[in-house]
Amino acid sequence: MSNYHFEQALFQMKRLVEPRSVAIVGASGKIHKVGGAITRNALEGGYGGKIYLVNPNAKRIFGKRVYPNLEDIPNDVDVVEIVVSAPLVPMIMEQAVRKRVKGAIIISSGFAEVGRDELQNQVVRIAEKGGIRIIGPNCFGLINTELGLDLSFTFSKPLKGSIAFISQSGALCCGTLDWALQNEVGFSKFINLGNKCDLDETDALVYLKEDRQTKVIAIYLEGITDGRKLFEAINFVSKKKPVIILKAGVTEPGARAALSHTGSIAGHVEIVQGVLKQAGAILVEDVEELFDSIQVFSQPRSSGRNVAIISNAGGLAVLTADWCHKLGLSVPKLPSQTIEELQSFLPSIASPFNPIDMTGDADYERYKRVLKIVSETKAVDIIISIFVAQGLVTSDGPAKAIVELNNLSNKPLLAYMMGGNSVINGIRILHYGGVPVYSSAKRVSRAATKLVI
Amino acid sequence: MSNYHFEQALFQMKRLVEPRSVAIVGASGKIHKVGGAITRNALEGGYGGKIYLVNPNAKRIFGKRVYPNLEDIPNDVDVVEIVVSAPLVPMIMEQAVRKRVKGAIIISSGFAEVGRDELQNQVVRIAEKGGIRIIGPNCFGLINTELGLDLSFTFSKPLKGSIAFISQSGALCCGTLDWALQNEVGFSKFINLGNKCDLDETDALVYLKEDRQTKVIAIYLEGITDGRKLFEAINFVSKKKPVIILKAGVTEPGARAALSHTGSIAGHVEIVQGVLKQAGAILVEDVEELFDSIQVFSQPRSSGRNVAIISNAGGLAVLTADWCHKLGLSVPKLPSQTIEELQSFLPSIASPFNPIDMTGDADYERYKRVLKIVSETKAVDIIISIFVAQGLVTSDGPAKAIVELNNLSNKPLLAYMMGGNSVINGIRILHYGGVPVYSSAKRVSRAATKLVI
Repeated sequence: MSNYHFEQALFQMKRLVEPRSVAIVGASGKIHKVGGAITRNALEGGYGGKIYLVNPNAKRIFGKRVYPNLEDIPNDVDVVEIVVSAPLVPMIMEQAVRKRVKGAIIISSGFAEVGRDELQNQVVRIAEKGGIRIIGPNCFGLINTELGLDLSFTFSKPLKGSIAFISQSGALCCGTLDWALQNEVGFSKFINLGNKCDLDETDALVYLKEDRQTKVIAIYLEGITDGRKLFEAINFVSKKKPVIILKAGVTEPGARAALSHTGSIAGHVEIVQGVLKQAGAILVEDVEELFDSIQVFSQPRSSGRNVAIISNAGGLAVLTADWCHKLGLSVPKLPSQTIEELQSFLPSIASPFNPIDMTGDADYERYKRVLKIVSETKAVDIIISIFVAQGLVTSDGPAKAIVELNNLSNKPLLAYMMGGNSVINGIRILHYGGVPVYSSAKRVSRAATKLVI
Repeated sequence: MSNYHFEQALFQMKRLVEPRSVAIVGASGKIHKVGGAITRNALEGGYGGKIYLVNPNAKRIFGKRVYPNLEDIPNDVDVVEIVVSAPLVPMIMEQAVRKRVKGAIIISSGFAEVGRDELQNQVVRIAEKGGIRIIGPNCFGLINTELGLDLSFTFSKPLKGSIAFISQSGALCCGTLDWALQNEVGFSKFINLGNKCDLDETDALVYLKEDRQTKVIAIYLEGITDGRKLFEAINFVSKKKPVIILKAGVTEPGARAALSHTGSIAGHVEIVQGVLKQAGAILVEDVEELFDSIQVFSQPRSSGRNVAIISNAGGLAVLTADWCHKLGLSVPKLPSQTIEELQSFLPSIASPFNPIDMTGDADYERYKRVLKIVSETKAVDIIISIFVAQGLVTSDGPAKAIVELNNLSNKPLLAYMMGGNSVINGIRILHYGGVPVYSSAKRVSRAATKLVI
């Protein structure tokens, strides 16, 4: 990692994301304000460490003792979270230095993002002097679900999971948590970097590589602080865990918008994308594709591109074969032995080739038998299983068959369920069974491509 | 329309889709079988014409009189729907000829799709002799929501609407109706063509052009029966109504699958797509894109490509600007007068350029004011309005502002709402207000491109 102090970043990020004690300066009981939402979230999360509330104008908040000043806290404080107006932040940081705090999460806005670069620089200088590392300012905070530590002002408390989400945009954090709750997707760590005056995506990556709770890392980026450093970090981390990157501002109008949004220079698109990809990042182009991609990594990665498509509807199998091919996957003919085995029990109007059309009355038994046979042939690397409700078979049986095969086989398995209320049950069974499930031929095929190494 | 008997096709399709009387041969009370589901749907739909049930083995079905034979019906029958086993279909068709029936919907399978071409040809010859036009065989039936006439075996009764859906695949019909019901999307006519032994997508198009209930036509195609005829029909119809086509089997593995699914020769992809596009069709590549596209036509079409993006989140505005640009739309800078007008009331941290970032606390009033100003400048042809819940403003206010502008302005207006439960309310308000709403930057931008003439 060249000049980058990797061990140091890891250690310092760890202290910020896994603190033993946190002080909230600007704590409040008004839950519709940022300070109040943060205080409530911090106290309600089930965190086992110490939370200290600081506010000179309150005695108790939510029944808990409040200290007038950071330095009045009698014990050590690892992390200070700051939710006061921007001009007061330097003073709080000076107190933090005297208190020997190790990290600061600065929620307050009103810094470089509105042209107050000098105020931000002042804060950085104080932090450097005291050896304090900073997340923010102008950020949404962070969440560590393993510790039950929620230092954000989210209104959608995330579920535990294995996905780490790093975002430069706070609004995107809100939208993602809201979406994730509805779709029952959980997170390990959730970090909004804001203005990135100190710690950035590179530091987060280095930390997340070693984080045992995290299996997949997803990053929303507008600007890149230090391209070389980021390249090296992705190169280093992606060997161990998938690093998915959504880079915004990749076109002229997008870059213009990014410039006025976070003051980021987006960089020349082809170069940036080429470099990120070369480093081993999995690039996505939209939030929906990001969500589709983070879910696919419940499945193992694949060194082969041969897909078997099994379906209870010929039309959807055709569309999926089209999409696999367009996206660079193969849909090979199956070995004659496999075809014969399938023909021995499939109805005469079924198609035992690849895609395999099991016909509309395919039920639990037929899905299970076909999936098992297909999973056992070396000609197949990845399996896509399709179901559309046709009034003959409910979605639960086929979904159970898919989950059961997923537990037996070590081949990547993805599902596509088409429809509305008739497939809700099947989708839930797949979701809880750890099988990623998609709602279109394109999306399931695109997700499959992410698994290919 | 060269040699194609356009007036005749129109007249004959009309008689099939808008009959005054229908006889169901193979009627049944067993609702879990195809004949029973069809009988129940036909009787329950609220159809004002006559429904006659025919079955030699039943006296009454659902309390209604049953005729032993088609010819025993004392009155005229416009359309016969046939749900008996394939080998019996020629005999029923002979009866239909004697009964002077005008059209037949043959649900029964077991014809060309399983290699029994001769049986299918026999049916066609009988029909030709008696001047009967056929939809099917091997089909799901048809639905005319205006007449309350449901001659399909669907388990998801469609809502009334202005979209006509024509599909070669029955399973895709089931999945589409199921999806549509969940998403409260309605249809005018819903026709599954099955084996297309007689009437095909061309005849359907010619009929739908004149159908007052239909505003948008969506077609799922695998094989093309007669390319020249289809080209002329699209060319003819698309001048009056949008014709959206999802053509499956466009790659080698897809085409191979289509061949074994419906025996269709899919044709060389670039040629087929080029020809369809030249004829005026709007091409889509996936079922989800088809659904996204049919919804966008609640908005007027546009001869310009200049998009204004307004958002309460900078990041999503950047992503949407990226996608508009990638898909060939423009995101131009706004006239200085418009920018000044916006600056006069937007917060200082907002961005009044294009995309317009109204910041996270943008509420009903701010959305309404910005939308109005943007809709009034000639520099803008299409408006995309973005909302993500950030805990500050609920989704209903912004959604109401968008719907209100939609009622005032004649510029196409599309919405993108990001999130989960927090945007459900807003999505419903937009949907009922006639504003198409999408869940990603890519999807809203792609839908906008469909409006450009």
